[in-house]
Amino acid sequence: MTGKLITFEGIDGCGKTTLAKAVYTELSNRLGKEIIFTKEPGGTPLGQSLRTILQTQKSIVCDLAEYLLFAADRAQHFVQTIMPTLEQGGWVLADRLADSSLAYQGYGRGLSTEQISATNAWAMQGREPDLTIYVRIDVETAFARIAKRNETLTSFEQEKRAFWQRVIAGYEAIFAQRTNVLVLDGNLTTQEQVAYVMKKLEQLQWLS
Amino acid sequence: MTGKLITFEGIDGCGKTTLAKAVYTELSNRLGKEIIFTKEPGGTPLGQSLRTILQTQKSIVCDLAEYLLFAADRAQHFVQTIMPTLEQGGWVLADRLADSSLAYQGYGRGLSTEQISATNAWAMQGREPDLTIYVRIDVETAFARIAKRNETLTSFEQEKRAFWQRVIAGYEAIFAQRTNVLVLDGNLTTQEQVAYVMKKLEQLQWLS
Repeated sequence: MTGKLITFEGIDGCGKTTLAKAVYTELSNRLGKEIIFTKEPGGTPLGQSLRTILQTQKSIVCDLAEYLLFAADRAQHFVQTIMPTLEQGGWVLADRLADSSLAYQGYGRGLSTEQISATNAWAMQGREPDLTIYVRIDVETAFARIAKRNETLTSFEQEKRAFWQRVIAGYEAIFAQRTNVLVLDGNLTTQEQVAYVMKKLEQLQWLS
Repeated sequence: MTGKLITFEGIDGCGKTTLAKAVYTELSNRLGKEIIFTKEPGGTPLGQSLRTILQTQKSIVCDLAEYLLFAADRAQHFVQTIMPTLEQGGWVLADRLADSSLAYQGYGRGLSTEQISATNAWAMQGREPDLTIYVRIDVETAFARIAKRNETLTSFEQEKRAFWQRVIAGYEAIFAQRTNVLVLDGNLTTQEQVAYVMKKLEQLQWLS
């Protein structure tokens, strides 16, 4: 029996990483199966190298090359980590996956969403998420949170608001066509969000 | 008026790099236009970083990730170097390009040639070579030359002979379907090969 692939998506500052880690902790106590938390880019040694390039050489990487680096990371990530875990019946919680590329590089930067979808499917060996948890939030709230973190802004976070608006519109367009998506209000507390996720997993009868 | 994109293809040890540089020298004297010699991977700062990854981390990069790194390099190479030169009427001599991926990663490693072709076209902005010079050689001759060079074998050169045979068969299959290919015997001297190339360029009336 194959395991479950659950992805967490949303713009930076939406709270998906905090949520994913909280769900990971909750499930680790309840699941009785292997469960891993992983993120893109950077879940493998290759991914770490690519993450460094994307963070330090952003100015010399064109939009398409940027996407293809994410796709290379994704292919390696699937071969090395995600597929072996799923094949052994384990669960994978992924902080970002293919939909991030569609939203950011496709809708955000204007690359072909058809080409991105085809290449994502190739990198993912045709495997799709069993469930995607989309944390919905508006740009102003996201920016306010990032400022409050008092962190150095990542290259994505330095983008203009118009870009972020396109990414949000992209996420909405992508998930409007899907059935296996749980949309959460990013203004809820993490505890409240975790409760919604657990309720969804129980409805799906994945916890029994 | 757009310039000319000329690619040099063939297995390692066939002599294409030596030929490409000799043609570059010959044309530099005759052409009266900008002409650049460039190679994959590594023609840009991003390419240099990726070349390092491909050479030093080969064992931790799966076949598809390897191809996608080449594709990322190619996309950057086109945006930054090749297209600007062509758009100004300059010529580009490329030591390896898309056909290397088709032959090595497609026919050699068994990745989908359809997906590779589609991704190559994306990375190359739909631009195809105006002429491809294919230096044909058999595996034994190539291996003998590489051994004679007394160089450290690259990761490609360490591959088994069966792999190289598939790459050669791939090149033959690819070029059998093309009209803008000049096939050269890799056993000729470089001087003789250059003469054939110049004759071809004259026939095409690209030197007038």
